[in-house]
Amino acid sequence: MRNFDENSITQAVLDRVAQASDPRTRQIGLALVRHLHALVKEVEPSMAEWEAAIGFLTRTGQMCDDTRQEFILLSDTLGVSMLVDAINHRDADGATDTTVLGPFYVQDPAVFPLGSNISDGIKGEPLFVSGTVASADGTPLAGAAVDVWHSDADGYYDVQQMDELGGLAMRARLLADAQGRFHFWTIRPAAYPIPHDGPVGEMLAAQARHPYRPAHVHFMIHADGHDTLVTHVFVAGDRYLDSDVVFGVKDSLIREFPSHPPGKAPDGRAMDRPYDSLHYDFRLKRKPA
Amino acid sequence: MRNFDENSITQAVLDRVAQASDPRTRQIGLALVRHLHALVKEVEPSMAEWEAAIGFLTRTGQMCDDTRQEFILLSDTLGVSMLVDAINHRDADGATDTTVLGPFYVQDPAVFPLGSNISDGIKGEPLFVSGTVASADGTPLAGAAVDVWHSDADGYYDVQQMDELGGLAMRARLLADAQGRFHFWTIRPAAYPIPHDGPVGEMLAAQARHPYRPAHVHFMIHADGHDTLVTHVFVAGDRYLDSDVVFGVKDSLIREFPSHPPGKAPDGRAMDRPYDSLHYDFRLKRKPA
Ligand SMILES: [Fe+2]
Ligand SMILES: [Fe+2]
Repeated sequence: MRNFDENSITQAVLDRVAQASDPRTRQIGLALVRHLHALVKEVEPSMAEWEAAIGFLTRTGQMCDDTRQEFILLSDTLGVSMLVDAINHRDADGATDTTVLGPFYVQDPAVFPLGSNISDGIKGEPLFVSGTVASADGTPLAGAAVDVWHSDADGYYDVQQMDELGGLAMRARLLADAQGRFHFWTIRPAAYPIPHDGPVGEMLAAQARHPYRPAHVHFMIHADGHDTLVTHVFVAGDRYLDSDVVFGVKDSLIREFPSHPPGKAPDGRAMDRPYDSLHYDFRLKRKPA
Repeated sequence: MRNFDENSITQAVLDRVAQASDPRTRQIGLALVRHLHALVKEVEPSMAEWEAAIGFLTRTGQMCDDTRQEFILLSDTLGVSMLVDAINHRDADGATDTTVLGPFYVQDPAVFPLGSNISDGIKGEPLFVSGTVASADGTPLAGAAVDVWHSDADGYYDVQQMDELGGLAMRARLLADAQGRFHFWTIRPAAYPIPHDGPVGEMLAAQARHPYRPAHVHFMIHADGHDTLVTHVFVAGDRYLDSDVVFGVKDSLIREFPSHPPGKAPDGRAMDRPYDSLHYDFRLKRKPA
């Protein structure tokens, strides 16, 4: 109960953590202590390195606010987010592949009517996005809530430039029609560096890693009786597809964003300038009955 | 370079982290990723549990400020601090045992002359503290800087009650005399719960653990040519000696704090009320030449 040394401390902590009455809490606590102590025993940090680790974690938490989530960036850049995602989506059963949520999702985005332009006038190449939402067996999911968000042509999200924009933009909730279809206008997103002016940026620099993600549009799709789908659609040909800083790219999520000359767009809109387009057919996994 | 699943993601992250040019940075990064991914693979967190973990770490960082260090509390309560301490003090070579720094140290405390009362008038049982500082071979260390800090009779540190106190108290730097001796007056500290109104308190509650530490006085002692000693002296007989929430107790650090009747104290002071006393002879490890 006292006089712990490096051989006895781990079991002492495990005994204490094992007091948890909830089995899952106990399981997580025991695993955390075993792996954390194993890490420390392997690395043998100096006192100065322990202080640096405490400081790193502290600054990572302090960097977080309503529009910045540095711990999600840390999880993403260490591959933890994609690992957790993979563990939770072992049986896709025909559903669309998933990828990381990322740090820029905003809960309950404003609902835009189908066909809206959600870019709030931010300059960029016009992009027409259309898609369908269906159950994995192909049954259309009428009324599915399609949350979308993406960067501007310079690679910045709205929440990174609230002072300049004065509000949210390039994000919306669309409600799929009776056939599970949706479409909207926006601007073409760009590849971007994740925010790297904080502790995660320091870590990437120390590891000689670039902070870039290939261009993509985020989707989170909710439909009754189905697992919520969190994914992106990536732009084919992007230079960072094979070195995404958060390990999130899957071939099934890459699409061409072809360019079209001025003229009548698929939704009937008369375009007086060139525009790009994206189409994706999403499939959601039905929840067990 | 893409399409990572739970079998391939870990190696992909290791390959990326291995780009670090500094060998120690590379070593720490690789170990971190291996142990962190092993933890995730064992626990198989749900998406909701991953979100809860992100939220826990975020709130832990956000709880930190100039007078609260929640990540040190987390390290302490998971036994990491004592493990790191043990790893860094394998060869005591006759030096005093070490224990955790804890979250309440304040850099560069005010220097008090020997014999001062450092309690700033806070009520409590008077305590006369004396000690010596020597090299492990017994050579007195004249001028050693002895930083001390401790709780009040209710178990609170000054930094936990700055609004009420208006400043620091029960902490000081004493400079040992030519024979390596020091002495001062203060009040007797009490056992106390570590701050448990934050994420670490939630964790302790979930693990059915009490948050108490046995009563103690902290010491950090610097002397030229020697390793800085970070330790406590614990009060013999305390009810929490065998269940310290941070696993910090060592028998060699426990001392009686005997009570004395009113009368002439060891430093000649005439005491008109009873007082307690503590004496400890500290030994510091000489740095390699
Ligand atoms: Fe993104
Ligand atoms: Fe303490």
